[in-house]
This record gives sequence, structure tokens and C-alpha cells, in this order.
Amino acid sequence: MQCYNPFLALSDLLTSQNIDAIVVSTLINVRYYSGFTGSNGLILVTKKGSCLLTDPRYTTQAVQEANCPVEIVSGALLKALGKKLKSSKAKRIGFEDQRISFALFKGLSDFGECVGLGNLVEKPRWTKTSEEITAIRASVKLNSEALDRAMKRFKVGITEMDLAAEIDYQMRKLGAEGTAFDTIVASGPHSALPHAHPRNRNIEAGGYLLIDMGACVAGYMSDMTRTYGVGSVPRKAVRIYKAVLEAQLAAIDAVRPGKRADQIHDAAMRALKGHGLDKYFIHSTGHGLGLEIHEAPRLGKKDATRLETGMVITIEPGVYEAGFGGVRIEDTVLVTEKGVEVLTQTPKGWTIVG
Amino acid sequence: MQCYNPFLALSDLLTSQNIDAIVVSTLINVRYYSGFTGSNGLILVTKKGSCLLTDPRYTTQAVQEANCPVEIVSGALLKALGKKLKSSKAKRIGFEDQRISFALFKGLSDFGECVGLGNLVEKPRWTKTSEEITAIRASVKLNSEALDRAMKRFKVGITEMDLAAEIDYQMRKLGAEGTAFDTIVASGPHSALPHAHPRNRNIEAGGYLLIDMGACVAGYMSDMTRTYGVGSVPRKAVRIYKAVLEAQLAAIDAVRPGKRADQIHDAAMRALKGHGLDKYFIHSTGHGLGLEIHEAPRLGKKDATRLETGMVITIEPGVYEAGFGGVRIEDTVLVTEKGVEVLTQTPKGWTIVG
Repeated sequence: MQCYNPFLALSDLLTSQNIDAIVVSTLINVRYYSGFTGSNGLILVTKKGSCLLTDPRYTTQAVQEANCPVEIVSGALLKALGKKLKSSKAKRIGFEDQRISFALFKGLSDFGECVGLGNLVEKPRWTKTSEEITAIRASVKLNSEALDRAMKRFKVGITEMDLAAEIDYQMRKLGAEGTAFDTIVASGPHSALPHAHPRNRNIEAGGYLLIDMGACVAGYMSDMTRTYGVGSVPRKAVRIYKAVLEAQLAAIDAVRPGKRADQIHDAAMRALKGHGLDKYFIHSTGHGLGLEIHEAPRLGKKDATRLETGMVITIEPGVYEAGFGGVRIEDTVLVTEKGVEVLTQTPKGWTIVG
Repeated sequence: MQCYNPFLALSDLLTSQNIDAIVVSTLINVRYYSGFTGSNGLILVTKKGSCLLTDPRYTTQAVQEANCPVEIVSGALLKALGKKLKSSKAKRIGFEDQRISFALFKGLSDFGECVGLGNLVEKPRWTKTSEEITAIRASVKLNSEALDRAMKRFKVGITEMDLAAEIDYQMRKLGAEGTAFDTIVASGPHSALPHAHPRNRNIEAGGYLLIDMGACVAGYMSDMTRTYGVGSVPRKAVRIYKAVLEAQLAAIDAVRPGKRADQIHDAAMRALKGHGLDKYFIHSTGHGLGLEIHEAPRLGKKDATRLETGMVITIEPGVYEAGFGGVRIEDTVLVTEKGVEVLTQTPKGWTIVG
């Protein structure tokens, strides 16, 4: 196994982009490169080396966490950064133009010529190191275990909010730092809203129960959706479920290194078209995940990114019919040399609960 | 009681700033003005009226929530926005220069002359309407109730993570949509890290137990910190606690309309200086809160914002001694005509638990 020093990728950019300095200001990228998890920090990379700037709240934590020299700054980090850039005589300053705020850009542009690095700073994050894959596996496993435990307590008539609370509690008891996003529990026609918020309303028999949940474990995310039938449901509900499952399996089958992201989406869409349900599939088929719940690539019709070994993505087609309900089935999968490994182990055959 | 239409504040800006259009792209501001809670949306305001742009995932939800016309856009919102700006013949486009991403700014600047509006778009949010104050009261009350319930289950020897899970669970069971931020549970010397993450480590007798927690209820945040002694603690721990409490009460006493934010911070700092503890107070005294957990003003030494009736702020001085531990005491308070109302009702006298 290779020993991976992410900072090398950054210093390589100094040469390849012909720049004198790189400012990493997006916190999640600061974390990726330095290991620092605080809420205020900047990394400055020059030919002399790298340095993390943060404020006095993090004096202890930054030194514990960071894999590079730390400088504690009283007052605005930007001002301290300016001084350091000046003393290093940096003229061309690389920055994260896809991520940075306009306000920070304006500040930086006082210090020199700003060179947008596009996605070059975060591109190394798209393919995961083996340590990262281990972390994501743990997150996926914990997420599935939390669903199992919560569903053991499920009864028809409990509220969406109570089920969501139970899910989140089980995640935390199992050791998650938190949820990867607000847990979705949506029942009946409300499941037709892809981003529904749990309501203080009883989950009744006769419709779907859709649960979309993710854990954050050691900073890494997982993402899974399961849709159940509650009690006795119309035949149409089963038919739609099976079509979505077919689409999800088709998309998973399409995953392998070299395939374009939009081709995975096409595979899911084609399967749904075969059932006349394509018009109800109103989002992309999935997305990368890692330190963030939404990373590149986006598996939609316009993303031509080639899949690479080590990418971790979700596969989550869905069908949403207003007034009736929605089905989404989502796994977290790893792109492997041979094709794909489905990390999510929770069963996904049609299941009636309650 | 006044009926408040937030859109009026926006259309007033068209005249006062001599602009043809305003683009509101920060999601929390989109929510404030339109009521829409989805994760992708833009508001366009022109002399002809206002409109919310979002994507097909939100077809149902946007119409349910928004208080203005909705346009569902397939593909990038920015492109659709460009067309609408063109057809409205807008030349000068107001935008949120403190918040917007550099990438979105670049996109907008293709459509016309971009005019930075500073904090004008979000300034109305700093003073809360009576509906907002009602929502914050509910959030504060629920937050306190969740702490009470969780602490009934507290025993020496449970882990920080388990106590955090219990707190979050109680919030959700009481009806919170979620936490306002990752709950902090830090015990012993770890409490000296102002932004500690809960660890999988037993809470032992002999030191502090610091809990910083907030709920999100109907979109509105609360924020409270309590620090306890666990079992028998050194006298020094009690002395520090009482000094921080004195500082917190002094800062609260200083709050009234017309006072500058930095003067509230001074009041806390002065009290700690009297105990020789000012060098251990390494952050600002508080911050506004509402739809976001951190809003203006910031009660630090450099914020000269004048407090106004209707502002909701936290008062949270702290003392952090590396190797020994940290104390922070935080309430959410409302600036009233007469001075201040402390919304947080949880007791804050020195308390031993376990």
C-alpha cells in the first residue's frame, strides 16, 4: 500500500500551474490536506512549505490534528495571510475559484494576481485512498445497523419525526459523530417529495415509507435510501417499486472504471423508460461522497466525468408521482478495478413493514 | 401587531441602490424572503415583481411554501436567470457580495453590471419579527427541556458520545427538526477546547462537564451552554465557574438598545479581568441567531454595531485553561425596549452532577 501525502499534490500544482502560492480556504479541503477539523482555517502553500492559519480557539486542537506547521492568528486570518504572502514575495496566487466566496476573492486579489485553480485542489478527493475507503465502509455499515435497530422499534402509527429521531439516536449510540444530512422519513403521498422533511404525522398503512439516511463517521459520509410498503398497499405501489429496483440494479451493473457518469444515469433512465416511468425520474442517479455528502462526479445526464477506480458514489434512482407517492432505492458503491462493489449491505427486496 | 412583508424591503432596495434587479442566491435569505426551504433556489426581484426559481425536485414543495410566483427550471438556474434578466432589460444587478460564491459572481457578471449590496439583503433579518421571536422562544424552551430530560439519565461513567446522543434524541422527540449545530459534550481537561467533539470516553468525576447545545425548531435556532462539576472537584474549578458566571451576568446587564456590540464584550472581559482570568477568554462574548446559528452582530471587541430592539443574541463568555478545563455559560437573550429579556430558563448556578 502506498503512503499518501496529499500535500504533494498541492506542491505539484505550484509548478504545473506556474504559481507562487496556493491558498486553500474551503474548510473541507483544509481538513483533507491538513487533518484540521476546526471551523476557521486557511492553508498557505508556497515553495518554502505549507502552513495552517487558525485562531486562538484552536490553539490546542490545531496542533493535535494538523500534519503541517500551525500559526495561531489573533484577528482576521486574511490579514495574516497577506503578510505571509508579501514576505514570501508571491505574485501569482492560486485559489479555489469554484468554492471561494466573492468577499474572500476580493480580499485575496489585493495581495497579487489570483489564478483560479478550478477543481484542481479538490480533484484528489474524488478517488479515495484506502484509509478513506475503510472510513466510508465503517460509515456505511454503521448506517445500515442504525436502520436495522430503528426498524425493530417501528410500528404503524408512530410519527415520521419519532422514527427519524430513533434513527438518528441509533446512529449516535453506534458511534457516529452525527448524520450526514437531515434524515428523511416520508410516508404516504409525502414520499413523492424527494427532499421531504419528517412531519409530526402518523405513518399509516396503505402507502410507502421512504427513509433516506446517512451517517458521519470519522468525518466520512454514507448515504442510503430504502422504501417500504406499510401494511396493505395497492398493486401499483409494488409495480413501481420493482421498476425502480430494476433501474437501480441496471445502473449498478453499468458502473466500471472508464464509464462516463452520464452513462450510469442513462442505464437507470432506460430501465424506467421500459416501464413508462422515466418522466417521474426527476433527479440525477447519484453523486460522489466522502468528506462531503455531495462530491463529484454527479451521475446526471450532463456529467461526462469518467469513473475511476477508488471513486465512491451513490446509485439512487427514484420515481415520484404527486398524490400517490415516491420510491427511491439508494446504495453507496465503490468503483473497483473489476467494476463495482456495493458497500451497502441492507436488503432491498420489496418489503412490507408494520 | 404589524403585518410584515419582507419583499417590500427588497423592492425598496431597487430604488435606494439605483438598481434594476436583485438576485438573492444565499439559500437562507431565499428562505427568509420567500418561505421556500429547498436546497436549490434563487429569487429574482425586478420592478415587475419577484419570482422564485428552483428545479423539478421541488415542483410540489415550492408551490406549497413560497409566497411569490414559482418558476421550475430544468438545468442550471443561472441560465434561466440570465434569460429573465435579459427579457426584463436589467442593466444593474444587485447581489449579495458578502455571501455569494466567486463562481456565481462570475456567471452573474455576464448578465450585466453587478452591484454589491453588502449586508443590505440580510440586514432585515438582524431584528426579528414577533413571529420569529415566537419561533425562537419555542426553540429555546425545547432546548432546555431536552437538556433536563437528558441530564435525568446522566450517570458518572457514561461516554461523552452517549450523552450527546441522548441530548439529540430528546430534542427530536420533543419535536425539533434537528440540532442547530453538532452538540458539544466535553469533560475534564477536554472542556478547555471551546469546540470539542464528543469522544467515546467516559465522563469521570473530578472535573468539568461542558454541554453546548442548540435546537432547530421551525427553522429557528437556539443556543445554550451549561458547565457542571462532576462529583468532587478542586476548589479552583468552583472559583473559575463563579468568575465566568459573574462575567456572563455583567454582559447581560449591559445589553440594551443603543449599546454597541463591543461594549457587551467589554463588560464580560472587565469582569474576568477582576479575577485575573481575562487572558483565558479567547473568543467573543456572543452572536446573533435566528434562521442561522451565527448571525450578526458578533459581540466581539471589533463590532461597533448598535444593539436594536428585536435582536436575539447569545451571551457566552468562557474561560479555558489548557490541561485543567474550560467553563462557558451561555444564554439566548432578546434585546427589548427596556433592556433585555433572558429567554433561556435553565438554571445556571454552580451545580454538581453525578
